[in-house]
Amino acid sequence: MTREDLINSIRQRRSFLCVGLDTDLQKIPEHLHSEDDPIFAFNQAIVDATASSCVAFKPNLAFYESMGSFGIQSLVKTVEYVKEQYPNHLIIADAKRGDIGNTSDMYAKSFFRHMDVDAVTASPYMGEDSIVPFLQYTDKWVVLLALTSNKGAQDFQLMQSADGEYLFERVLRISQTWDNAKQLMYVVGATQADMLKRVRAIVPDSFLLVPGIGAQKGSLDEVVANGMNADCGLLINASRSIIYADSTEHFASRAADEAEKLRHQMEDALIAKGII
Amino acid sequence: MTREDLINSIRQRRSFLCVGLDTDLQKIPEHLHSEDDPIFAFNQAIVDATASSCVAFKPNLAFYESMGSFGIQSLVKTVEYVKEQYPNHLIIADAKRGDIGNTSDMYAKSFFRHMDVDAVTASPYMGEDSIVPFLQYTDKWVVLLALTSNKGAQDFQLMQSADGEYLFERVLRISQTWDNAKQLMYVVGATQADMLKRVRAIVPDSFLLVPGIGAQKGSLDEVVANGMNADCGLLINASRSIIYADSTEHFASRAADEAEKLRHQMEDALIAKGII
Repeated sequence: MTREDLINSIRQRRSFLCVGLDTDLQKIPEHLHSEDDPIFAFNQAIVDATASSCVAFKPNLAFYESMGSFGIQSLVKTVEYVKEQYPNHLIIADAKRGDIGNTSDMYAKSFFRHMDVDAVTASPYMGEDSIVPFLQYTDKWVVLLALTSNKGAQDFQLMQSADGEYLFERVLRISQTWDNAKQLMYVVGATQADMLKRVRAIVPDSFLLVPGIGAQKGSLDEVVANGMNADCGLLINASRSIIYADSTEHFASRAADEAEKLRHQMEDALIAKGII
Repeated sequence: MTREDLINSIRQRRSFLCVGLDTDLQKIPEHLHSEDDPIFAFNQAIVDATASSCVAFKPNLAFYESMGSFGIQSLVKTVEYVKEQYPNHLIIADAKRGDIGNTSDMYAKSFFRHMDVDAVTASPYMGEDSIVPFLQYTDKWVVLLALTSNKGAQDFQLMQSADGEYLFERVLRISQTWDNAKQLMYVVGATQADMLKRVRAIVPDSFLLVPGIGAQKGSLDEVVANGMNADCGLLINASRSIIYADSTEHFASRAADEAEKLRHQMEDALIAKGII
């Protein structure tokens, strides 16, 4: 999916919502446990219920890997279903990978050719040669961790150099010099909204994937005020607050309600900024 | 496996070698392709050939994930085989994971309960709450990336704070304050041997997992000189130089020769340091 396709999708759906598919067998409604593949059945229902309110889906690999090869199959089926039914939705594999060159090559092939998702999240700790193999796929996106939404973000990401540059700022600045850097997006947590101005000073045009709205209590208004650019430039992720809004047979329609509520706030923001 | 078990294993086998199982379908001998599970057949032969020369095996997850659910099954079979046949060998899942708390919980459960490996590698970028879920398993090890062996290590790991502390030093120092920090090991690349003195100044007692010997040209002598402590404190990993030493039907005996050559150098070092 190109940048233009993504911007068009945001304008058409009047939304920049990404629905996180953090699907946990312990948390899905009881009645789905009798299905052949309860995880896929849940995802299919959530995808159908929320697709009209969002522009992206983000399965987190941990949830699927924790169920072994059966879980990986549920993930692959979910990805195939979205690609077939909603081909204009971005699929982000939230994997936070990063390894030496020949190993990152294997991960890149795995996500971009075999699973054929549109984007993968990656950790910058090992530097350029751990990320460039992903950037070789010029029709795909790499979403690099910059400033995350969790408490531990302060341990290392807010380390400052002698001239006052934070580690996350260095990640933004240096990664922009890498080959095919235009295919980079960045993870910036909604709980770090006050830092978004510093992010935008370094990457004014890049798309930011923003977790932390909903269960993690970040503020949509603050993220929009400090992070939105002329192309929107934001994908805001919500997972638990949407997919586990209800644990009965009405889970899908309640998920649709929650997603639509967020989409409506996003539509207001897009109108206010003159993007739609 | 406890610290004492590991030290005993090093003394008994007169080795601190870890064999990296970076098994790639494109690189294994032609004749194995007719096997039901060529990856497992290769691993089984390599494990049998090298077990007497090493104390640990380290499968890198990327290689298995790139083959989809079939690859994961080969990995699980390999882990089960090592546990059955060589129960005193440490198994390190080289996964370089790290995510927000509830997600790291899933990864920890996946590696330590379902797959039941002894150790997993993790990336420190997201800080304390991304690693502590792994440290809850007090019979297991977490091998945290500190200073890696690749060129990109310099991009961020060598960032310096105003008082001269490198990021990798901060990772060592801060992580030592976390709950159950005694279960931490650290990745320090053999290509960074001159930095090992700085590592040992912060974590004199911790075990270090050292990649970069062999295909990546790090020096065993320098690593020993700067990194060995009174309990050895080192696990030196070699992957490609052992497992792909030969691509014919003699691959296993050639792998055994390469592993034994390294073990012999390690034995000399252990004797010189008075550990055995």
